[in-house]
Order: sequence, then C-alpha cells, then structure tokens
Amino acid sequence: MATRVAINGFGTIGKRVADAVAAMPDMRVVGITKTRPTAEAWLAASRHFPLYGVAPEHVSALTDAGLQVEGTLSDLLQQADVVVDCSPGKKGAANVAAYEAAKVKAIFQGGEKHAVAGFSFNALVNYKQALGRSKARVVSCNTTGLIRTLFPLHKTFGIDHVHAVIVRRGADPSDSESGPINAIEPVLQLPSHHGPDVATVLEGLSIATMAVAVPTTLMHVHAIQVDLTRPPKGLDAVLDAWQHTPRVMLVRGDRGVVSTAQVMEQARDLGRQRSDLQEIALWEDGIALDGHKLYYYQAIHQESNVVPENIDCIRALHGKVKDQTESMRLTDKVLGLSTSTYP
Amino acid sequence: MATRVAINGFGTIGKRVADAVAAMPDMRVVGITKTRPTAEAWLAASRHFPLYGVAPEHVSALTDAGLQVEGTLSDLLQQADVVVDCSPGKKGAANVAAYEAAKVKAIFQGGEKHAVAGFSFNALVNYKQALGRSKARVVSCNTTGLIRTLFPLHKTFGIDHVHAVIVRRGADPSDSESGPINAIEPVLQLPSHHGPDVATVLEGLSIATMAVAVPTTLMHVHAIQVDLTRPPKGLDAVLDAWQHTPRVMLVRGDRGVVSTAQVMEQARDLGRQRSDLQEIALWEDGIALDGHKLYYYQAIHQESNVVPENIDCIRALHGKVKDQTESMRLTDKVLGLSTSTYP
Amino acid sequence: MATRVAINGFGTIGKRVADAVAAMPDMRVVGITKTRPTAEAWLAASRHFPLYGVAPEHVSALTDAGLQVEGTLSDLLQQADVVVDCSPGKKGAANVAAYEAAKVKAIFQGGEKHAVAGFSFNALVNYKQALGRSKARVVSCNTTGLIRTLFPLHKTFGIDHVHAVIVRRGADPSDSESGPINAIEPVLQLPSHHGPDVATVLEGLSIATMAVAVPTTLMHVHAIQVDLTRPPKGLDAVLDAWQHTPRVMLVRGDRGVVSTAQVMEQARDLGRQRSDLQEIALWEDGIALDGHKLYYYQAIHQESNVVPENIDCIRALHGKVKDQTESMRLTDKVLGLSTSTYP
Amino acid sequence: MATRVAINGFGTIGKRVADAVAAMPDMRVVGITKTRPTAEAWLAASRHFPLYGVAPEHVSALTDAGLQVEGTLSDLLQQADVVVDCSPGKKGAANVAAYEAAKVKAIFQGGEKHAVAGFSFNALVNYKQALGRSKARVVSCNTTGLIRTLFPLHKTFGIDHVHAVIVRRGADPSDSESGPINAIEPVLQLPSHHGPDVATVLEGLSIATMAVAVPTTLMHVHAIQVDLTRPPKGLDAVLDAWQHTPRVMLVRGDRGVVSTAQVMEQARDLGRQRSDLQEIALWEDGIALDGHKLYYYQAIHQESNVVPENIDCIRALHGKVKDQTESMRLTDKVLGLSTSTYP
Repeated sequence: MATRVAINGFGTIGKRVADAVAAMPDMRVVGITKTRPTAEAWLAASRHFPLYGVAPEHVSALTDAGLQVEGTLSDLLQQADVVVDCSPGKKGAANVAAYEAAKVKAIFQGGEKHAVAGFSFNALVNYKQALGRSKARVVSCNTTGLIRTLFPLHKTFGIDHVHAVIVRRGADPSDSESGPINAIEPVLQLPSHHGPDVATVLEGLSIATMAVAVPTTLMHVHAIQVDLTRPPKGLDAVLDAWQHTPRVMLVRGDRGVVSTAQVMEQARDLGRQRSDLQEIALWEDGIALDGHKLYYYQAIHQESNVVPENIDCIRALHGKVKDQTESMRLTDKVLGLSTSTYP
Repeated sequence: MATRVAINGFGTIGKRVADAVAAMPDMRVVGITKTRPTAEAWLAASRHFPLYGVAPEHVSALTDAGLQVEGTLSDLLQQADVVVDCSPGKKGAANVAAYEAAKVKAIFQGGEKHAVAGFSFNALVNYKQALGRSKARVVSCNTTGLIRTLFPLHKTFGIDHVHAVIVRRGADPSDSESGPINAIEPVLQLPSHHGPDVATVLEGLSIATMAVAVPTTLMHVHAIQVDLTRPPKGLDAVLDAWQHTPRVMLVRGDRGVVSTAQVMEQARDLGRQRSDLQEIALWEDGIALDGHKLYYYQAIHQESNVVPENIDCIRALHGKVKDQTESMRLTDKVLGLSTSTYP
Repeated sequence: MATRVAINGFGTIGKRVADAVAAMPDMRVVGITKTRPTAEAWLAASRHFPLYGVAPEHVSALTDAGLQVEGTLSDLLQQADVVVDCSPGKKGAANVAAYEAAKVKAIFQGGEKHAVAGFSFNALVNYKQALGRSKARVVSCNTTGLIRTLFPLHKTFGIDHVHAVIVRRGADPSDSESGPINAIEPVLQLPSHHGPDVATVLEGLSIATMAVAVPTTLMHVHAIQVDLTRPPKGLDAVLDAWQHTPRVMLVRGDRGVVSTAQVMEQARDLGRQRSDLQEIALWEDGIALDGHKLYYYQAIHQESNVVPENIDCIRALHGKVKDQTESMRLTDKVLGLSTSTYP
Repeated sequence: MATRVAINGFGTIGKRVADAVAAMPDMRVVGITKTRPTAEAWLAASRHFPLYGVAPEHVSALTDAGLQVEGTLSDLLQQADVVVDCSPGKKGAANVAAYEAAKVKAIFQGGEKHAVAGFSFNALVNYKQALGRSKARVVSCNTTGLIRTLFPLHKTFGIDHVHAVIVRRGADPSDSESGPINAIEPVLQLPSHHGPDVATVLEGLSIATMAVAVPTTLMHVHAIQVDLTRPPKGLDAVLDAWQHTPRVMLVRGDRGVVSTAQVMEQARDLGRQRSDLQEIALWEDGIALDGHKLYYYQAIHQESNVVPENIDCIRALHGKVKDQTESMRLTDKVLGLSTSTYP
C-alpha cells in the first residue's frame, strides 16, 4: 500500500514536494493545506490534490473563493502516515503538538531548528538512522549543498577544517517584493548559522561559514576551502570522489557554463519540472588543490535541492524501504535526475 | 509523409523550434547547425538531432570537440522541405541565396527586415496568404505580442491609433554578459521599430511605439493605449474578444500575479517545457476603458512566444494544411498551450 | 530676519530639504525631528541641526542612544515660521491639526493627497497663488517632472492630451530591502495616480498615465506622448521652449548619456551635493514630432527634484519674496543648478 | 614649485586623480588626455584641464567636436614631472617606452602587472621605498583594500595565512552595458589573481583568494578569514589596530548600515566629491575571533579607494616629501577623509 503523505503548506517547497510525492510509485498525496486562495491554491486544485484549510477560518476563506475544501489540518492528519511540514520558516515548531496528537510521523524543513525533531536528515549520510523515527528535519538548501560535496571528501580524504563563504540569492524567482536591488549585504552575525547546521548531520566536522546576500534570484553560490587530512596527489582523485556521489553534477565553464545563469539554463534544457536543478552544480574547471588545501565553487538551487531528500526521508520514517541506495535510486530515477554510482 | 525541417542555428529560438518540430506529428527535424562546440551543441546531440556545421571549418571545430557531425549547411538543405533560419539577428539575410539555390522553403525570424522575405507572418492574421510561399518572416516577439492582442480589437471595434511603450528585458536568462545592472535605457531613435513592424502584418494600422530597456531577464512588458473606432459600452466586450483569441492568457493581480515574476512562475507550475510561456499574458484587472480610449498591460515571453508561429508558418509554407485553425489547434495542443476558441 | 524653518522627518527628502534650507541666505533650520537613533539622527547631529523627538517617547529613545535632544515636535513648532512635513507618505495628514494649533505655516510632500492643503504647488506654475497661504503641498517627484516639461509646451503650443508611461525605480539607493530583483511590475490600477495629480497643478489638463516598477534604484523614466494643439513646424521650437525653462536639463545620447546610469554620473561629475540631480533630464536626441504628436523621454531623480520646489514654497508661504523669478533664481544659484532663462 | 602632473586617460580613475591633484596645494594638473569627444572630454574642458589627444588622430577627433586641444601625449609629457597612467587595464604597459623617452616619472594602475614598474605601491606599507623611483604601480582597488586592513594585523599580531572571498560588483555605476543582470559568476581560475597581487606589496604573506561577480554596481565586499600568529585575547585589540589605521572606516549594522547601499549613502551624506568613499568600510559588528582565526567583512569603493594612494605615490616619486605621514595626512585632509592616527 502506498505511503499516505500530507503536505502542510503549499508554497515554494510544498508544491514541489507534493508533485514529487505524486510521481513516486510508492506514495500518494492525501492532501495539502493552504490558508489563502492564492494562485497556488488553484494550482493544487488543478493538480487534483485534496485541499484543506489549516484552521476553520482558512476553510471559509478558501471556500468563499470558490475552491473545494475537504476540511482542516486535523482532518487531513487523520488520513496520513507522514506529514511533510512546509510551513514558512520557524513556523513549523508550533505544529509539533498537533502532529504528535494525531500520531503521524512528521518531517520538518531546514528553516526549523535541529531541536524541533532532534534529528537532522541527509539521505547520503544518515538514512539508516532515520528508519522508523517519528520525526526528522531535512536540513536547508545550503546545508544540504555543503553536505553533498563535503561528505565524499570527508570519507575519502578526511577533513581537518572547512571555510565556506555563501553568496546567497536575495529572493526566489517568484518573489517580486524582496531586495536588494543594488547592494551586497553581509550576514554580520558570525559565524553564520550554516556551519553549525552542517555539523548537525556531519557530526564533529570543523566548519566555519560567512555569508552575503546579493541581487539575484538564481541559486546560491558557495566558495569553499577545505583543509584535507590526507590530500591526494592530484585533482583526479577528488573529481572521482564527486563523480561517484549522487545528486552532484559537474559543470564546465569552458563549455559556456560560466555562471548560475547557464547552470539554470541547463536545467531548462534537461526538461526538468519547473526547470529545477535538484543536484548540486560543481564547477569541474574551478577547482584547485594546493598542498592540503582544496578550493572549489558550487551552486545550489534553493527552490528544489531538498526535494529528493524529503522523498527519501518519507521512506525512511515510514520504514518500508530499509536500504538507502534503493530509496535514493528510485527517487532520482522518477525525478529524472542524472544518475550516478550510489553508495 | 512528415515535413522535413532543417533548423539553421541552435540558440535561444533554434533549440525551441527544434523541440517543437520534433513534437509535432506531421514534422521531423532533419538536422540543426552549430558553429561552435558549446553546451547547446551537446544538447542537440543528447536530443539526437543530426548535427551539421554551417561551413566546413565549423565541421572541424565540432568534430574536434568529439561531436558527431553529418556535414555542412548545404548538405543539410538537401534533406529539407523547409529551413527555419534561427541565426543571430540580422545575419539571416546573408543566407537567402543559399536557401534559394537549394530550392528549400525558408522561414526567417523577426531580427531580419521584412524585405528578407517580402512577407511577414502571424498565424492569426495571414496564414492563408502564406500558403505555398517560398519565404516568410515570423515577426519578432514584441511584434507578435502586439499583434495577438490588437488584432481582435481591430476586428471587433476598429482601431484609430495605438500608442505602446515597450519595457524591454535587458538580457535573456542564459546571458550573463549583457546589462544594464542598474539603469533604465530609453531607445532614443523614435518611433521605435516595433510600431512599423506591426504594420507589416496588420497593414494600414496607425501605431507608434517607444521603448526602454531595464535590468531584468524576464519578459517584456507593454503599456498600451488604443483609440477604438467603435468603443463598446463596457470592458466585458473587450475581455470577451481576448478570451476568444488563441495564444492570449488572462492573468490576475488579485490572485498574486502582480509582476512578470509570478507570470513566469505560472509557466513553471503549468509544467511547460523550459518553463516557457508561449501565450501573451494580459492583466485582466489592469484594463481601463475611458470613452474611446482603452488601456492595458501585457507581458511577452521573449524566448518562446514566436515558437508556435514558426510551427504554423512551416505548415503554411509546405502547404499541406490549408486551414489556419487546423494548424493552430494542432500546434497548441501538442505544445500544451491553453486552448481557446479559434477563428 | 531669516525665515525659521522646522523639518518634521529627516529621511530621504527631509535631510535634503534641511541642507538646502541651511544653505539659503534667507532661511535657517530651527530643528529637525527623528523618532529613532538611526544613522540619520547622527547625521543631523554632525550637521548641528537641533534635534527633536516627534513625541516624548522618541525623545527618550534618542537621548538613550547618546544624542542631544531639544524637545518634542510641539516645542519645535514654537520656534518656526514654516514647517516642512517630510514624514513618510500618507502620514503627513495626521499632523495638520498640530501645525494649525501651533499657527505655523505648513508644507506637505507629494505622498499626501491634494486635500491635505487644498493647494498643490509648483514654483514655475503657481508661485504667486501660494503667496501667504497657510498650507501647500509640493507635488511628488513624478508629478513635478511631468509639470516641468509639459508646462512650457502647454503655454507655447497648447496641449490637447498627454499619455505618459512612467517606468519607476523599484527602491531608493539607500534601501536594500525592497525589490523587485528580477521582475517588471505594472501598476494595475488605471489610470495611475500620476495623471490626476498633474491636473491638481495644471488645472484642466487632459492627461492619462500608466506605470511599471523595475529593478533599479536610479531615477524614474517617463515615455511621453503629447497631442499639441498648435504644433510647430519643427523640433527647434520645442527645444527652444525647454531650453528657456528652469530646472530642465537637456542630455545627449550621442555624447554617451544613453541611460539613467550616465545621467547620474553627470550629477556626480557636476559636484552636486549627494550627487543629486534636481533638474529633469530630457534626451535632446530622443524627441520626435509627427504632425501634432510629440514624443519624448525624460528622467527624474526621485530623491532630489522636489527640493528646490520646497525651498520656493517656503518663500511663497512666508510671503517675503513676492516674485517667482527672484525666488527660483536664488534657489538655483545657491544649490548650484544649471541656470537658464527664467519666466 | 608645484609638482607638474600629467594624467594619461580620463575615465573612472583618471578624472578622480585629476580632481584630487588639482585640489592639492603642492601639485597642479598640466594636462589630461582623451581619444574621443565623450562627455568626459567636455567635463575636462569645464574643469579647465588642458586637453591633449593621445595621438594626432585623436587631436583631430576632439578638435572636430569643438573642443580646444593643446597637442598630443608627447607634447604633454614635456610639461610634466610625473605622469599618472590611467589608460584602460592592460593598456598601460605599452606606454612605458614613451614615458622613459620623455624622462618623466610614471605611475601605473593595478590593471597592469607588477613587472610594468617593478615596484608595487601602498602608502601605508612602502612609501619610503618609493622615494625618488622613476616608476611605480599603485595596486588595484581590491588589493589596496586587502592591504589596508591586513597590514595592521600583520604588524600587531602576525599573520600565518589569509583566505579571502571577493564578491565583486559586476559593473561601475556609469556602465550600462555590462552584466550580469541576474546571475552569480565565479572566477574559475584559482586562486584568483588578488592573493598574489597582495604579496607584491606585503611580501611573503601567505594568502589565497577566490572571487565571484554579482549584479550590483556598488562596491566589492570581502569575506576574510585570517589565521593570526599571536591572536589577542579579545576583539578590542583588533578594533584598536584598525582604528589607528588611516583610510579604514568602521561602520555599524546596528545603526542601519547593513549593506553596501547604506555604506555609499554615508559617503553621500558626508558630502564627498562624486559621493566617493576612499576609505575601506569595515563592519565593526561583523567581526569574530575564534582562537587564532579572525573573521571580518569589508567593502571597497572600486571607483575611488586608490585615489589617495596615487596622490601619495606622486609625492613619493617626485621625492620632495620624504615623510610618509606628512604626505598621507595632507592627502587625507585635502580630500576630506576621516582622519585618524597615522603611523
């Protein structure tokens, strides 16, 4: 029987998770929630996802706009094995009690703190530990991106220390309110939260991060310096480690992929849904190794890279698929990701 | 037998026309040309489009990069019933002689002058006049956009004069070289070329246009004022005219579609290939009628809105489908456009 | 004796009006107000402008931060002949009662409605009618810009109708929060408020406006079409009318001034305070006359173009300088504007 | 007698150096060169700087446009003690022979290689070594910025290694052609040239840099991590080192200076010519010290921060002012920079 999945919140992440769940052969969407009759509420209707208000007042707001509504969040939770909380950042913690009361397994997003679930998830690193848990947090897009490329380095060469600078997009493509229009804004609180967040998954990793926000809507870019414990003799071994890592895609400046603009154009040309790129794009011709210091750049599609992680996390929590590779392979095949060697 | 289509040039427009041709049941791509081994050349290979160099030196450049090349443009033209010239703006005119020598029917894009073909095409307006012609020019994205929404007004209410201001995107999404980053740039040569260009299709229309370029990659926006000859009593009749026009999509600010950002997000949510929007987006709640003066805003997806026109133009030139509506319906159905009443 | 001027609000407009007042030989700043100890509060201190809180709680907030505070707005109004209300848009109306109670003459900005003062001011058009009034509203930057170049056309050639499209900057240079980053946003409520606002000064003028917001911080650009009643034979007469209009500056694309970027660079090179450009920049080589229709582009520095109008309005309300030309000449000379023939 | 200074090239840097030279009591501008009659040529005329063509053909082009021209570059060099080469990046090397032939001392900009002069200059670090030299290169804006804040750390605490990520503005404010509009572009060649360039002045310093270009025109931002040899116990000692360093300005996010937008607004409020900020802006509340690792952010005004260095370099080469502090104090006082303790 398919895992019954509820999605609480249907914005940037929620609508993507819903589409991905709907595409999986072993899952189905039992419902999604909205609070207001926005374009996304109509999108849910056109996708035939059962629509629920979060609270009774939302039911009326949605009904008044002419939408068919099935009930409230509590009603929805009765139908679900797993709920994926996609409410706006820092709002998920307030839902823990409702999920526990309904005895539904719950997945939170990276906007929440580690403590919300007591367990932070990345499919590559700790799928097995997540098996059967009642709660997990899928870490944020930036954290997921750092983990995907650092983990194979960690396993293969050992990591003494990481220093990463995160150049953040100012707003998502569908957001026309937020800026900046013409400024660079440093994240003054140091170290930025991303470093400690990586360590919730890669426990014990020594990592410090700084961040600046810039006026673009396309991807975050990371400039990363890693002190390797056992550096290889050449870059080939490093490339090899990444080539055998799922959800990492090597791109090349000498083929015209010189910025996030062309990375996203590749996603469009690949025919991905919503032109998303769930893999981390890592510049193959933008890597340097100097003694034990490794330097590289990667780009993170903030809207979508955590979607496959959510799918795997649903499987891990529901506990029917015990094998990490089996889950990741299935997820990636159905989403049309570039496949690769799996662990 | 399927119409054999060659595509000369495989950039922003060429790759889209090729994909659309490949999707049509009555056409096939016999080959595309490239001059350099860019990411798009590899894309063509992954799509299994036969790859040709334009001239012998391009064949070597492509071969050297490891691509399989079938020959030169002259070789390609031998295989084709119709060639769609998608070379960069103002470069198409130089190809006329080659197309004529090969006795292949030719379609040019809006970057060329009307004189290149002596006939400017829009499926809605003059499909029948194009039947069996040896050459035609599909007008530019802005001109196509103006024609699509002005033509039904012209037919229904009569137009005395049009004044349109075109707010142009500075660069396409895949272009990270062009600016401006933080400036508004007026097109000082007045009237801008767009007005006269509309009149190559809607002959005799009185129209003047001005234009400014702005720092965005998403869509052009038109602010349009039309002096109607026989204005209706209310906006309903105007909306009705547009609702019965193919390739025009009404969008609503009160549903959160307040800028080109949310219009393009709709295209992503609709699952269009490359997240394109081939229709003109017209704001239903941004229209005003004051006596004989009608005001409205529309947004034009510069990368894709001429693609269905190219498909129809191929059919018209090849001459097998005599009926405009039959061609447009088929094109739109295969591309997944929102269908509508057809003329 | 110098006119004693209070400035209520010390943001983008307030700090500029204060500096301009301080520079005038016949005026002095008796104080400015702030509510919070921002960088601008410290700027006021460094300029030696007496600092007041608006209400008692603001006095404490400013004092706690270490600033010297002289009292509240009511205390300040006792010291002033004229108060210039530079509070955020739509907040000025709430201050009318306080100004009337203090029997101080009051100037409002264009963010307020005409009704706030019952009189809308532009130095060129209606200085004399403002003489001795107790209240006036200096119209907004866009309205001021339209009036400056339309008024000489109106006087010389007559105007039947104006259609203007306003391409608005998304945020001011010092604002790093507002967007859009990558979108064009039409102002859907039609006609936009700018047209009727022009008619509060140029009474009876037939004008309709549309507007779009774009991702830049530099200047608004207007694309204007005017139907002239008595069109001249050639453009020379039109240029002559503008050349004899104060606070209008002709710029030339063929000297490299092709966008708002180079217009603002001129202001920097001219050594203007804060690199402001109080004049309207009108492209001399971007004008066309076709029968009775005149087309032109102009750029508006939204941060500063109303500053000289505020200065003249202070003089008009205080009533000591009866002559419009005497006031405008003095204002422009002290601010270092390019002088010109005066009416 | 005043040092006679020629400026070869009158663009972004040249026009600023010319204005600064003209303001110094011990220097005068004997002429500037232009090749084309752009707005900047007219600016030179309005500033009364004698205008020269580089070669005879430029003299004609300028004369034809109505400008008064005094001769060619060779003529100009006869009048000068020192020439400041402000020709576009990488074009200066071609002028070495002409300067040597004319026996004029020459200063090059950071777009040239170290070898062009064999000596790279920063006033704080090596003024004395420059005394009387015939040639020197003033290092680039980014290199100057790194040196200004690293040198006091180096002197006070010792530096083991520096890792800096440079977030570059995409284009200057007056450039409306260059992009990107909506992309982040990594500098793939690693390490980026900035690190080695710092070591041409701070010899022996271990430093690696990475860089990305972003869509803004305002300032570069550096995210810097320094491994200190003898770290202090707290941040106070670090702040103290910077507070006693000329041409470094501490700014505060908690006063609203949260991005480059507000940093540049400060320069406008300070009344600097062209709203330039010649100092490095360093966020006082964006610093962290973790063991021997120090983290900080700084912003670099790419158009102007090398201007005071050029002025000091002129004095050093001409050799009349032997004392570094005397020169720096005079430069900063005349330019209105915030003064500070000097070495």
